[in-house]
This record gives sequence, C-alpha cells and structure tokens, in this order.
Amino acid sequence: MTRPVTLFTGQWADLPFEEVAELAGKWGFDGLEIACWGDHLDVVRAAEDADYAKGRRDILERNGLGVWTISNHLAGQAVCDDPIDERHRDILPTRVWKDGEPEGVRRRAADEIVATARAAAALGVDTVVGFTGSSIWKAVAMFPPASQRFIDQGYEDFARRWIPILDEYQRLGVTFALEVHPSEIAYDYWTAKRALMAVADHPAFRFNFDPSHFVWQQIDPTMFLEDFADRIAHVHCKETATSFNGRNGRLGSHLAWGDPKRGWDFVTPGHGEVAWERIFRQLNAIGYVGPISVEWEDAGMDRLIGAPEALAMVRNLNAIAPAGAAFDAAFSASEASS
Amino acid sequence: MTRPVTLFTGQWADLPFEEVAELAGKWGFDGLEIACWGDHLDVVRAAEDADYAKGRRDILERNGLGVWTISNHLAGQAVCDDPIDERHRDILPTRVWKDGEPEGVRRRAADEIVATARAAAALGVDTVVGFTGSSIWKAVAMFPPASQRFIDQGYEDFARRWIPILDEYQRLGVTFALEVHPSEIAYDYWTAKRALMAVADHPAFRFNFDPSHFVWQQIDPTMFLEDFADRIAHVHCKETATSFNGRNGRLGSHLAWGDPKRGWDFVTPGHGEVAWERIFRQLNAIGYVGPISVEWEDAGMDRLIGAPEALAMVRNLNAIAPAGAAFDAAFSASEASS
Amino acid sequence: MTRPVTLFTGQWADLPFEEVAELAGKWGFDGLEIACWGDHLDVVRAAEDADYAKGRRDILERNGLGVWTISNHLAGQAVCDDPIDERHRDILPTRVWKDGEPEGVRRRAADEIVATARAAAALGVDTVVGFTGSSIWKAVAMFPPASQRFIDQGYEDFARRWIPILDEYQRLGVTFALEVHPSEIAYDYWTAKRALMAVADHPAFRFNFDPSHFVWQQIDPTMFLEDFADRIAHVHCKETATSFNGRNGRLGSHLAWGDPKRGWDFVTPGHGEVAWERIFRQLNAIGYVGPISVEWEDAGMDRLIGAPEALAMVRNLNAIAPAGAAFDAAFSASEASS
Amino acid sequence: MTRPVTLFTGQWADLPFEEVAELAGKWGFDGLEIACWGDHLDVVRAAEDADYAKGRRDILERNGLGVWTISNHLAGQAVCDDPIDERHRDILPTRVWKDGEPEGVRRRAADEIVATARAAAALGVDTVVGFTGSSIWKAVAMFPPASQRFIDQGYEDFARRWIPILDEYQRLGVTFALEVHPSEIAYDYWTAKRALMAVADHPAFRFNFDPSHFVWQQIDPTMFLEDFADRIAHVHCKETATSFNGRNGRLGSHLAWGDPKRGWDFVTPGHGEVAWERIFRQLNAIGYVGPISVEWEDAGMDRLIGAPEALAMVRNLNAIAPAGAAFDAAFSASEASS
Amino acid sequence: MTRPVTLFTGQWADLPFEEVAELAGKWGFDGLEIACWGDHLDVVRAAEDADYAKGRRDILERNGLGVWTISNHLAGQAVCDDPIDERHRDILPTRVWKDGEPEGVRRRAADEIVATARAAAALGVDTVVGFTGSSIWKAVAMFPPASQRFIDQGYEDFARRWIPILDEYQRLGVTFALEVHPSEIAYDYWTAKRALMAVADHPAFRFNFDPSHFVWQQIDPTMFLEDFADRIAHVHCKETATSFNGRNGRLGSHLAWGDPKRGWDFVTPGHGEVAWERIFRQLNAIGYVGPISVEWEDAGMDRLIGAPEALAMVRNLNAIAPAGAAFDAAFSASEASS
Amino acid sequence: MTRPVTLFTGQWADLPFEEVAELAGKWGFDGLEIACWGDHLDVVRAAEDADYAKGRRDILERNGLGVWTISNHLAGQAVCDDPIDERHRDILPTRVWKDGEPEGVRRRAADEIVATARAAAALGVDTVVGFTGSSIWKAVAMFPPASQRFIDQGYEDFARRWIPILDEYQRLGVTFALEVHPSEIAYDYWTAKRALMAVADHPAFRFNFDPSHFVWQQIDPTMFLEDFADRIAHVHCKETATSFNGRNGRLGSHLAWGDPKRGWDFVTPGHGEVAWERIFRQLNAIGYVGPISVEWEDAGMDRLIGAPEALAMVRNLNAIAPAGAAFDAAFSASEASS
Repeated sequence: MTRPVTLFTGQWADLPFEEVAELAGKWGFDGLEIACWGDHLDVVRAAEDADYAKGRRDILERNGLGVWTISNHLAGQAVCDDPIDERHRDILPTRVWKDGEPEGVRRRAADEIVATARAAAALGVDTVVGFTGSSIWKAVAMFPPASQRFIDQGYEDFARRWIPILDEYQRLGVTFALEVHPSEIAYDYWTAKRALMAVADHPAFRFNFDPSHFVWQQIDPTMFLEDFADRIAHVHCKETATSFNGRNGRLGSHLAWGDPKRGWDFVTPGHGEVAWERIFRQLNAIGYVGPISVEWEDAGMDRLIGAPEALAMVRNLNAIAPAGAAFDAAFSASEASS
Repeated sequence: MTRPVTLFTGQWADLPFEEVAELAGKWGFDGLEIACWGDHLDVVRAAEDADYAKGRRDILERNGLGVWTISNHLAGQAVCDDPIDERHRDILPTRVWKDGEPEGVRRRAADEIVATARAAAALGVDTVVGFTGSSIWKAVAMFPPASQRFIDQGYEDFARRWIPILDEYQRLGVTFALEVHPSEIAYDYWTAKRALMAVADHPAFRFNFDPSHFVWQQIDPTMFLEDFADRIAHVHCKETATSFNGRNGRLGSHLAWGDPKRGWDFVTPGHGEVAWERIFRQLNAIGYVGPISVEWEDAGMDRLIGAPEALAMVRNLNAIAPAGAAFDAAFSASEASS
Repeated sequence: MTRPVTLFTGQWADLPFEEVAELAGKWGFDGLEIACWGDHLDVVRAAEDADYAKGRRDILERNGLGVWTISNHLAGQAVCDDPIDERHRDILPTRVWKDGEPEGVRRRAADEIVATARAAAALGVDTVVGFTGSSIWKAVAMFPPASQRFIDQGYEDFARRWIPILDEYQRLGVTFALEVHPSEIAYDYWTAKRALMAVADHPAFRFNFDPSHFVWQQIDPTMFLEDFADRIAHVHCKETATSFNGRNGRLGSHLAWGDPKRGWDFVTPGHGEVAWERIFRQLNAIGYVGPISVEWEDAGMDRLIGAPEALAMVRNLNAIAPAGAAFDAAFSASEASS
Repeated sequence: MTRPVTLFTGQWADLPFEEVAELAGKWGFDGLEIACWGDHLDVVRAAEDADYAKGRRDILERNGLGVWTISNHLAGQAVCDDPIDERHRDILPTRVWKDGEPEGVRRRAADEIVATARAAAALGVDTVVGFTGSSIWKAVAMFPPASQRFIDQGYEDFARRWIPILDEYQRLGVTFALEVHPSEIAYDYWTAKRALMAVADHPAFRFNFDPSHFVWQQIDPTMFLEDFADRIAHVHCKETATSFNGRNGRLGSHLAWGDPKRGWDFVTPGHGEVAWERIFRQLNAIGYVGPISVEWEDAGMDRLIGAPEALAMVRNLNAIAPAGAAFDAAFSASEASS
Repeated sequence: MTRPVTLFTGQWADLPFEEVAELAGKWGFDGLEIACWGDHLDVVRAAEDADYAKGRRDILERNGLGVWTISNHLAGQAVCDDPIDERHRDILPTRVWKDGEPEGVRRRAADEIVATARAAAALGVDTVVGFTGSSIWKAVAMFPPASQRFIDQGYEDFARRWIPILDEYQRLGVTFALEVHPSEIAYDYWTAKRALMAVADHPAFRFNFDPSHFVWQQIDPTMFLEDFADRIAHVHCKETATSFNGRNGRLGSHLAWGDPKRGWDFVTPGHGEVAWERIFRQLNAIGYVGPISVEWEDAGMDRLIGAPEALAMVRNLNAIAPAGAAFDAAFSASEASS
Repeated sequence: MTRPVTLFTGQWADLPFEEVAELAGKWGFDGLEIACWGDHLDVVRAAEDADYAKGRRDILERNGLGVWTISNHLAGQAVCDDPIDERHRDILPTRVWKDGEPEGVRRRAADEIVATARAAAALGVDTVVGFTGSSIWKAVAMFPPASQRFIDQGYEDFARRWIPILDEYQRLGVTFALEVHPSEIAYDYWTAKRALMAVADHPAFRFNFDPSHFVWQQIDPTMFLEDFADRIAHVHCKETATSFNGRNGRLGSHLAWGDPKRGWDFVTPGHGEVAWERIFRQLNAIGYVGPISVEWEDAGMDRLIGAPEALAMVRNLNAIAPAGAAFDAAFSASEASS
C-alpha cells in the first residue's frame, strides 16, 4: 500500500509557506495539503497566473514534496452560513468580505470556492477539501423550535448554492471533498446522507473523512467508511481525546482549546481515542489509496514535536496491509487456521 | 417529604388552560407550572389586571391545584439571542415581535420578562422559570474560530441585558430560574459556573434543574445538584433516552423529535436514562423542598397516558425520604449495620 | 396501535391444542401462532381437509382467539441441513423422515413446507414462520478450513432448494418468514443480507424478527429492524439473559437450558436484556402493525406464570405509540420543547 | 419453591421485640431472624430458662411467624478483634464488656457465642448467623507493612479461638454462619477460601450469604454461590447502591450512612445494584431452600415503607422457579426451542 | 525467566521447511513448533526413519533453532468429527483419507496421531499440540434440539476414541496438548472441565493455551490459566481483535478472514485485545516455563512484517518477571510500600 | 516544561545510599527523593551535623543528582496510628520505638517528623513527603459501628497532633506533603477535604499526589488535581493495575503483593491503568513545575529493568507541553481548526 502521507498546512499558516515546506520535507512527509490562506496559496493568483502556480510547485519539489489536495475551509464556510458576522470577517480575504453585507459575502465566497477549483487544476490537483457552511447549524439544539420546514430549507439552501459550484468542479475534473464537521451542512452520519440526497449524489461532491470530529459525537468512523465507501475522497489524520467526568460536557462549554475543563479536545494523532488501526484496515477494505493528511492540532503540545510523531504513526499504520501477490499464497495457508 | 408535584403546561398550550387544569386535577397533580403562552397566562394582563390574575387562581382552585412557579421560556429566549429570526417570530407575542428588528425584539423581550415577574407576584408566586437566550450559542462548535474575546462578549452581553432584569426581580421578591439548556447562556456545568460569575452571583438568579438536558451532554445531574445546591430554585422532571449505535449522533442530526435516527430523544419520565432515584436522594440531601414539575414530552407516546404515568413515578420517588423524628431512632439502630 | 398479541404454541406442544387455546383465551391473548407439530396442526390434513381446518378455527373462535401466522420450524430445518441425523428424526413427522436417507428427507421436508403454505391458505393465514436449515452451519467455526467455494455452495444450495418453494408461496399469497437464528442460513445481520441476495430478494421471502437470538451474538435488534424494515413479516417476543463472568461462554458450552453455567439463556420476556422499548418504538417507526407473538421459553420458570406475565409486558409496550390525530396537535406544541 | 421470607430484627432493635413481631406479622413475613441484642433475645436467659425461650416462641406464634435463625453479630465481632475499644463497649452486653480488658472481653465474647448456640437449640433453631471479628482487619491497606507472618497469624488466631466454639456448635447440632463482610476474617472470595482452610472445613462453619457487601468490593455474588454452594447456610436480602463519580470513593470516606458523598450505601432491597434475579436462579441451581432474610437498612428511607416493599420483591423472586413435575414435560417441549 | 520463543510453522506450510527455518533463525526465534503437514514433518517417516528425523534436527541446528513441540491439528481433527466431508479431504494426507469412508478416516486419523507421538519421541520432543475433533460441534446452537443423551454421547465418543491414543502417548512419555478451540471437544472453560472428566484426568492429556479463541467467546484467559494451572502444557501467542458495531456478529457470519464485516478476526500479536501482560504475569504465577509459540495469522498484514514484530513483543513480555534472588531483597523492602 | 524527574529511594533502602545514587545517576534521573530510613538519611544527624548533610549532598553531586524532597512515611505513620503494634516496631528507628508504649511512640514519632523538617532545611530542601497515620483507619468498614463522634475525634486527634508540627514546618519554611493513601487521615477526595478543614488549611500542609492509590478506590486523579490545585506540593509517578474478575476484590484479600488473586497491584509505571497523559496535561494546566518522582514498586518485575523504563516514560510525558512563546503563535493559527 503506497498511500502518500501529507501535512495539512492550515495550522501552520502563521509561517511562510516555504518554511513549512522545508519542515515537512525534513521530517519526511510525502507532500503537503496546502491551505488556501496565509501566504500558502492565493487561489485567484494560482488560477490566473501560471508562474505563481509553478512557483508553488517548485517550492514543493525543492523539498521533495508532492501535492494531491488543496484546502479552502475558510471561504467555503461563508457560502451557506447564517448569520455572517465578525467571525467570518476575521478569516476571509478582503476581496470576499468587502463590506460584509451577508448575501454579498456568500456570493463572493462561492466565487472563491470556484476559483479554488481552478487553482487546483492549475496545480495539477484533483481534490479540494473544504467546508460548506450551513444556514441551520444555529438550530442544532432545536430551540427556538426549528420546524421541519425550517430544516428542509437549510438543505435546499445548501443545494441551491452548491450545485452550480459542483457543476463547475465537475467540468474542471475536480472533486469537492466536504469535511464532515460540526457547523457544516453534514456533520454526522445522517446529515451526510441527507446532504448527498440534497445534491442528488452529485459526482463532484464527496467527503473528506476526519474521524476526530466523530469521537465526541459518538459516531463510528469505521461504519462511516464502510457505508460511504464510494464517497471518500480524502482522509485527515486528526485526533481527539475525551475527558468526561460528570462536569465536562460533550459540547465543550465554549472553553478554549487546551482547557482541561473541555469534555474533549484535539490532540496529537496517537494521543487520543480514534481507533486508527481499525480505520486503516477499513481503508484497505474499501480500496482507498489516496493521501493520509496529518492535520495536527493540539493546544497542549509543541507542533514541532507533534507533527513528526504523527508522521511516524501513519507510516506504521500504512504498513498494515496484505502482502500483495505473496500474500495470496500465505492466505490460503492461513485458511487452515488453528 | 411533602414536595408538591406539578404539571408544566408548556406542552399542553394547544389546549385551553381550563381544560389542562381539569386534566391535571383529575390525575391528582398538586398544581401547575403555568406556561406564559397559548391562553394559559398573559403576563401583561396578569401584572396589570387583578381580576385576570384572580380568574387564573380560581381555575386552579376549582381543580384542587396550587401554583408555585410560572414559566416564560419563549420571551426569555429572545433577550440575548443572535440572530433573531423567523424561529423567534413563530413563538413570540405580537407585542414583543412587532417589526422584528432584532435589537427592538430583544428589548421588548426583556420588558416581557420583567412583566412576568410582576405577573408572578400578582399570582403570589415567587419563581419564574425561563430561558435567557445567548449571543454565542451559534459558536458552540467553535468554527468559524470564536476568539476568547468573542466568547467573553457573549457573557458580558448576557450580564448587561439581565442584571437590570434581575434587579427588578429582586425588588419584587421573585427569583428567575434559568433552565440550564442547550441554546442558553448556561447549558452545562462550566457554563453554569461562568454565567453565575457573569452576574456576580446575583441573588435573584438561580437555576431550574432539568436533568433531561444533561443526559446526552454526559453531565452528571447529581454532581450538579451537589455543587450548585444553593442555586436550585426549581426542578423539572423530564426524561431523555439515548440510542447511540455508531450512526446516531450526540447532536441529533437536525432530525425531528421521535425519529429513531436521533441519538437521543425526550421520552415520558421513567422511560429513559435519568438516574431519578439518585437525584431524589440528592434533593433530600440538599434540602430541596420545592415543586417537582413534570415536563412531559415524548413524540412517541400519547400525553394522556404519559402524564399520569409520570405523576405516579414522582410520587414514588418523593416517598424515598428519611422517616423524620422516627427516623433518627432507626438510624442509630442502623449504625450497627451488618 | 392495535397490534394483536399472540402466543406461539411451540413450547406448549406437549398439551392438546384445545387446552392451549383455553389457557391463551383465559389469559387474554388475541390469538395463537400455531405450531405445526404435536397435535396442534397437521399441515397435510389442513391443506386437504376443509373440515379439519374449520375445526381448528372453531377452537380458536370458542376461545376468542384469532390466527395470523402458523409456524413450521421443524420441517423447515430439514430442507437444507447437512448432516441429517437422529436429531432430525426426533422432531420430524414419520411421513417426512421415512427411512432417514438424507436427500430424501430433505425433499420430503420441502414438500411439507409447501403443504404448510397450503394449510396457511386454508386457515386464511398469509404468513408461515419457520426455519430453513443450512448445509454450512457446521462450518461456523471455519475449521476444518471452509473455503470460499464451500461457503458459496451453502448459499447456492439454499437458493436451489428454496426458490421453488418460495415461488409456490408467492402463488398462494403466503409469505415465508425465516426466523433469523443460529443453525439457519441467516442467523445475523450479514447472513441475512447474503440470504436475501441468494434468493434475489424473492417477494415471498421475509423474516421473523426474534431479538432473543441477537442478544448473545451482540447484534443490535433496532438496527436490524431499521435496515430490513421492508422484510419484517412477523415479530417474536422472546427474551435472553446473559451471565458472562469469565467462565461462562458465548457459545453455551453444550450445556442444557437453565444451567447457570451457560453464558446466556432464554428467559421469560422482561427478565432479560432485550431493549424492548427501543424495539417497539422502532416498530412504530417502520410501521409494523402485525402480531407480536410471545414465544415463551424459560427453563427456570413456570410457564403458567411466565406466559401471562409476558402478555402484560407486551400490552404495555404496545401502548407506547403516538396519539394519532390528537397526537399531531400535541407534537406541534411539543416542538417548543424546553 | 417454598423458601420462607424472614425479617432480620437487627435494624429494629430500638423497638420492643413484640412490636417488631407484630409489624412483621402484619406485613406478611413468614418469620423473624432474631437479633440477640436490644430486648429481642437474651441468649443466656434463652439457654438457661425454658420459660423465656417459650415466651419468645409464643410471641412469634401469636403473629403467625416462624424462626429458622438467630443472629449475634455483636458478640461475635469481639471474639477476634484487635484492638478492642469503645466501639465494642457500645455494642456489647455488660456481662461481656465488664472492665474492658481486651483479652478478657474476647474470651467472654466467645462464651457468649457458645451461649448463642445453646439459645438456638432451646428455640429449636439450627443456624446462628454472626461475625467473627479479625485481628488483621486493621491491616487491610497493608501499611504499615503487614508481613506474611503477621497475616498468617491472623488466620491462626481465628482458628485457635473459633475451633473450640465450632466444636461446641457441632455437638449442639447448630451451624455458625459467618456473614462474609468487611471487618471480619472472611470478607471476600479469597478470604472466604482461606478462612475455610484455617478451620479445616469445619462442619459447623458455614456462610451467611449477603450480596450487599460484595457490590462495592466488585465480587460476583453468583460465582460465590456457585463455588461455595455447600457452605451456604443462610441468605440475607440486603442491598447496595453505588455512586462513583470520580470524587466518591470505594472506601466510603468515613462518611455517615445516607451521605450522598459516599461511593456506596445500603438501600432498600430493589433500589440498588444487586443482580437479584441471577442470584435467585443460582440459589435454585444449588438447591438452597432455607430462609431469605430481609436485612433492611437504608438511611434515606422510612423502614416502615422499605421493609414491606422488600418482602414483596422477595416473594416475586421466589416465584422464579421451575414448575416441578409439570415443568419436566414443559422442558422437553422447550428443547425444541426456536 | 528463560521461556523459549518459537514460531509455529502451520501458517508457513506453503514454504519449504528449510526456508521457514532460515527466516525464523534470522529473526531470532529460539525454535520452531513444527507443523506435521506441508513438507515440514512427515510423522510416519519421522517415526520410522532415524535419518529423516536427524535431518529435520540438522536443519534446525544450522539455523540456531530448538524444538520443544510438534503439532498435528489436521489429523487430530478427523478423529472425532462428524460429518467427515470435503473439508477434511482437503487437509488430510492421502494415507489417512483414502476412500473417504468416514469411520475408516477416523480410525486412520487416530493412527496418524499415535504416529505423531512416535515422531515426537524420535525428535526428542515431549509435547504434541493438536485438535481432537468433536461429534457434537455441529449441535452448538442446540437446534435441532440436542438431547442430554446426544451431548453425553459426544463426550463418550471422544473418550472411547482418545483414551487408547492417550495411553500410547503416556507409554511414549509424550503429552497430547489439545488446543482449546471452537470445533473441538473442548472450546471453552466448562467444556474443558467436561473433557478432562471424560478422560478421567488422563495424565497424557493437557491443554495448549491459546487466548485468541477466548476473546470472542468472552472467556477470561487468566482465570483459565489459574484454574487449569496443572494442565497447561503449551502456550500459543495468537491474537484476536473484535469489531462489534451492532451489525458484525460474534459468530463471524461465515465471512472470510480479513473481512471487516466479521465481528472478530485474527491479527498480528499486539494488535488485538488479548491482555498479554496479565497473562504473562499469570504464567509466572503458575510457574509455566515452557515455550511461547507465536502462531501468526493476520489476513490484513504481511507475515514477513508480522512475525518478527510478534517475536519482539514476546521478548518484552518474557522480561516481566521477578528478579530472582536479588528480587527477594527488593521485595522485603517494597513491603514498606507507600 | 522542565520538571525534574527523581527516583524515590524508599523501595531501594536495602541498598546503600551511595549505590542507589550511582544507579539513578547512571540511568539519567535528575535527582533523588531521599527516604529517611535504611542508611539513606538519618534525619537527626542531618538536622544536627552539617558535615553529614554535606556528605549526602556530595554523593548526589558526584552522580549528577539534585534533591527537592525528602520523605519520611515511616515515622509519620506512627504519629496518629492506633493501635501501635509490631508492624510499627518493624519500621521505626529504635530511638522512636524505645519501649513501644503507644503514646510515647506517637510523641517521639512527632519529634522525628519535626527533625525531618530540620534535616530538609539542612539539605536545602523545602518539601517533606510523608504519612500522618490515623486513629480511625481501623474503622474504615464502619463496623463495629463508628459513631459520628468517634469519626470526628479521629480528625481532631489528627489536628491536635499535627498543627504543632506544621507550625514548626512553617517556621522552617518547609511544607509537609501528605501522601493521600489508605491508612492515612486523608486517603481519597472527601477525606482530603476534611483533613484540610481539620487543620484550617494550614499553609504548611499540602499533598503528595500519587494516583496509584486512586485507581482501585475509583477516584479520578485529574479531578483531584483540578480541585486541589493549590495544595499539590509533590507528585509521585507510581502505577496500579487491576484484575477484577468476580473473584478478586477491591480490598486485596490480605494477599501479598504480586499475587494474581489480588484485585489490584502496584506495577511498573506504564504497565497499569493510571491515565498518565491526562494527568500531565492537567499538571500543565495547574502550573505544577515541581519534581515528578518515580516510586517504583512491582513485585512481578525486576527493579533494575523497571526503574529506567519508568524514567523514559516520564521524560516522554514531560515533553507534552505547549511550545512556549512559539506556541502562542501556533495557537492563534489553530483557532481556525477544521
């Protein structure tokens, strides 16, 4: 099994892209999943300026890195979100935010997401990972009462805004891989089903599988992989640890990352409760051969220690695989198990 | 122990108040926790029109019922919420909603909550149960990134809007009992701590304890009672059952009540996972002698069956209590346990 | 919800049919699921002799009982089993066993199962519950090594023997409801899938849902109901309790029923670990309105105590149902949950 | 199954014996397990004064009660305990305590236990339930370091003091049933083994089985019954509930009964975590036909409510039993389980 | 502790014996547990031809390997099995299968097992690991109803066929170590007890302990070691991982090894749920000093990676042992634990 | 984070101090927590003889070791214990035991503990770890009945004996860190609260946190750290493994360390069930920067293997820490988590 291991640069966007590439290369990653923010990737330039795109690839090559995916969670978030507020302003490019009028922001965010597909194509990449936002996330607790109509409209809004985007992706030969994640239109098993239904199983719409978001929602990542096998376009290796003690809650209590009063937190891969080996055996079973992208996030640890540690873990997990041709012979022998 | 058992009329507001009173009286409830919506209680009229207030009490008396609490979740919700949208419009009185301009709605909702205290006083009731709303609930998933400043502002907004209300409550000798509940400023253990801190332990601010909202957040209701003993002003007997199976999630998947694909749902008291006996023993320990109010909600069951069933359960639980004076003698005997 | 509650007569076949009918009538059952052995029902006579069939119905009517299903586990077992041995001889009618030559027994058992459909039709019943047997059950531990070919042949053998039977059932307007059960072609979730595939989703082939067989196999009965919703033709209310302690095993250790050294055992419904309320709420969700048939079996209890106790439990469970038209109004009220 | 249900009078010793007998008779108990303290039973008088003994039996008979067991936990405790201190003084008869010199107290306590056997014989009772005390209980935490020699001496001390007592019991045809209980020489599975070994399986030494003491020690009561089947002389129906929450500990924190900060507490039978039905099925399996004695203790409940509630529970449990002769027939039918 | 670590060659029988020896030697194993199939060991030749036996030992010695055990699961399986079918044909030597007539096969299989003891003796080995087969395995689900007589006959059949074999083993100074395993006469705790009883604790009959078969049956391996301490002749280090999710079942669904739909599967030691450290500490406690034999089987991993990984794990586990003489001093110090 | 890692010499007191220092230095420990027994540290000499104290420090320095804490569990134990018996004699210096008269022993033990503070000061150390003993430990099972008065007196006795000691500690600038441990006045969460209350939160009284004693009492170590954050003076890295199987009990059955029949046992750090990573993250959160002292104890392992293994584990855990200044930047990036 030769799945490449990449580093998602989203949590490193405070560093220049070149520096991140050097670090990742030095540690032995196979490539980067480039975040479309910070100075890492300007999607409009990449889409329009062949030299810029080539410059990015040159940096990768100098560090022995490939690229299979780029990611634009930030712009994607604004496509469907309601309300649009200061939180969006803080993360959007000026060209998207402009005057902050919500509907205008949403439309420009949609344009940015289309530009991201063009940037991907320019880089020779066929997958964009990202978020969709959601007009009904605010109603997750169902109070004030959210009528069925209100909920249905949320999925319809998603379909209305995203189908044109996805059509464009399809034309460009690029897949949009929604990271199933709270605050998005799909955040668990049933909302993933419903989101697929909303876009009529659009061929350009697939999922970025990130089990860290399932841990605290108590969703079984392996069952998700099994049942959505043909929709898994990308895999994040991100980790979550829980600490429920009767006081810490599932919802995080609006506490900052790293506060031990949270019921759960992101930690360096291998330090939490994701059943990685079962997941990798399931990835083998469904034939996933794309990248495993380390999304390191751990407010309690130094990323310079955590990222290479995660890489080592993924290498070990990638080594869990049948033995190819030689394996077949072994297997018939092993049928006589005892 | 002589705690009264009341029926919360919120889930019966489609019926005329008089009919609900008759049902409750017939079933043997000790009283009603009157919802301030439907035709059950118009707080403005009750505050201003002594005859109206007397009329409500007459209905209760005719049915052998008392009243210890009135509830105004709906108006309370709008005091801090952001955004204010169609969901609020659907549940607010016209005099509060008016043109729907958010800040105006919030101010009028605050007035309504003050009127509710006056209505309580007019009815001879010293506790108002309700919601507060929250400007930061929408950020519960912490994406888009909610900065510490953003979160802090949520609590400050709550304090700014509610301290004047609470001052008025204090003057009227009425307690506002926030039902700790997702979508409110306090929804779990740590947010309850933080909310108390935000209003500097205001003497008119206490909690309505409803364990059904803790089940799926994995908060220990007994520990909550123990640690917030002096802030428990009222108790809801409402129940939750979970059905996690790897597909159903903690967040409910935006599915309707009663859908078995939800990870949890409200059910008739006694049909779920609340550890009622431990809770009642803890209520004994902290000396809570107020009402136990049945908040019946179960999309899969007939309320005409469920409500009296819940009443019977609470009567049995209320019977779990030390034997008074006689008990002391028993206890010294029981020290020689074997 | 008006699901009838029936008593399966299989565990009462030592008593004359008339006596069982009297007991069931006296206890208040709505009907019987008649076992096609003992003197309870001779399928050949019922199929051929209108008077005999009428006589059976008369007995039922005299005791205020209906019939929706008849059951023929014993003959069904022999259709696919391999080996055929003394255990089959002890439970088969002489006309099926004859000389005991295995292939002959299998063919005559198939004829008997077809006759059972005719008997059902003669009694005005559209469902036959039963077993299929399996030529690969003996290989459940996969040692000696069972090759993929060997396993595939098991399903093919099942299809070859049963499709003609099922075609005949379809012609007669009768459904064969396989009780998913160890020792049958389908005994769990995945074998149920595979069995359906083997008969190409034959319209006359459905399942008798009996959760007692899932408890010790650790299959989730509710998920089974959800995923096979359109294949549930009948429901058994039978119960299992486990007692794993490090010594007692999942496989029962070839110990007799009622031996506390067994890892699990059948017990009177309500005395074990089946999550009945979740199951009944799921039955509501999938719209199952057929009979709930009490299959009482408990080597540690008197059936004269256990059977009426089970009936009472099922009546309570059947009462868990939305309130019909009245319910809809309640539900919109309850959307304003708090 | 006709096991009598008795009430242990230990927790009622503040009431006159006659009053307890009246209560128990009124509630429908079959008899009393008479505590040898309060005014319930003076063992010396009963052993020596036939009229006194007859008087006790008369009281029982007047209330329709029998007696199968008398209990002397208090005197038994002092036989081996070290240190002997004010706690013993508070529970011992003056004739045993006298000057409180430890070794003298121990010897007089041993005499009292022998007298208890004589009292039993005088009452026509063949079982004395009680405690043994232990010189090594104080070393349960093994600090200061308790050497193997120190521990061994504890068992030797037990044997040296109790074998003469047991010999006397044997002569009198009475069994001493040690209640396996923390603070005694045997308090769990392995110490029960070791205690039996210490007295070389003395025929007069058996156990009073009380599962409430196993709950918080995490001992499996059913396995205990299975493995010590031939040593079960008596059964207490006493109950324990736990409330571990990360703060409450297994050892009870030296807190008073009824304090919710305790990790566990005694509660009315049926309100806790003892797996009663498994226990009763196991009692059937080992053929135990002696009394089930309700030892009611619950600092949070009124004994006048709790005791009859416990009686009702035991009656239901006693009803779980095979159907005798009729059962055999049923059983062969049930072998054809499906 | 100097327990040798061996590699069981059963899963490597597709390779020539010499190649397996080279691999094992290179990886650092101490020896081989030689499977009596493939070209690894012909028991008849080894029993009769001293040169052949010496040749096998020479190969071992050249690779720095010893041998303490040989294994003949395949022939053993046929001694008691019923039915005998194509699965047996596929694994038996021609000289045993011949015409496939069942009773003849069983007798020749018994002869082969006796020959295996002779081969062992010729190789200087005192333990043969293997299977027994079972005429009642097919009745594990107890349907069609398996009468007590039928079950008893299974154990009698086992005794009748194996006691003569065991007598011969005893004469040769060789122990037959049955691997407790589903499809054998003993597959769990209670069947192991019953099997021992059936052969009256024959001195030549002991067990090969393999915890991988206990994981999914929920048998506690440590308790098994403790209670059968004097019958443990050999230890397999084989591993199992489970993946129960409500759909995957305990019985494996007749699915192939490596299919993630199985409820459990064999995996490389250290990748599953066997509590190895507890087991090794228990092996220390019972004084087991024989070989730990790695039985590698993992359809999802390359054996060339897995086998040396398992060896490393066992070496670490073997290092968990008291410190000998030096340890005693440490221990008295450690009594002053704090 | 630069917490030093020390080795507690208590379990090495059979070796000369110099030898232990050499071992620890060689393994790479940062220092020793010196036990005040064996020849490791004579507190009277150290308090009075500057040369002796300097000699101890010289030994440390020669081996590259520091010292932050000294420990005197043995003398501390005798300050409050009742009874005082041979177990104390075996562990106390002659100058403390003398004639063994209990009250005299207690007073001399108190003097020894004061001397320990002086020794600490002489060594430049500001923390003494130790035990307090308890006059009520013997009543942990609450039988014979321990009245509230009896329990209260236990805490009063503790206060009366220890406040003068603690005053002296305060004068000397030394903290006494009680190891919360069964057999001491504080052994769990609530007794720790009560002990603090008894000494009115004496500034010289803090805790040595050792999670190994919480595992089997089911106390959450992380919650303990959070709630007693300002009282954590020292941390032991000691480990416990449990093996509950229905027979092994929570109380250890008075069995020797290392016996697999114990329900729990001390094991080499990393081999048990302490949630070390959560603990270290919590230590980061409360700002604990003192030593992590390895208290190695494992009757089933060689300390020469176990101690350096534990050191390696602690080094890895210490590495889990935010990245300092650099971290802040990373953290704001990580707020944009996805």
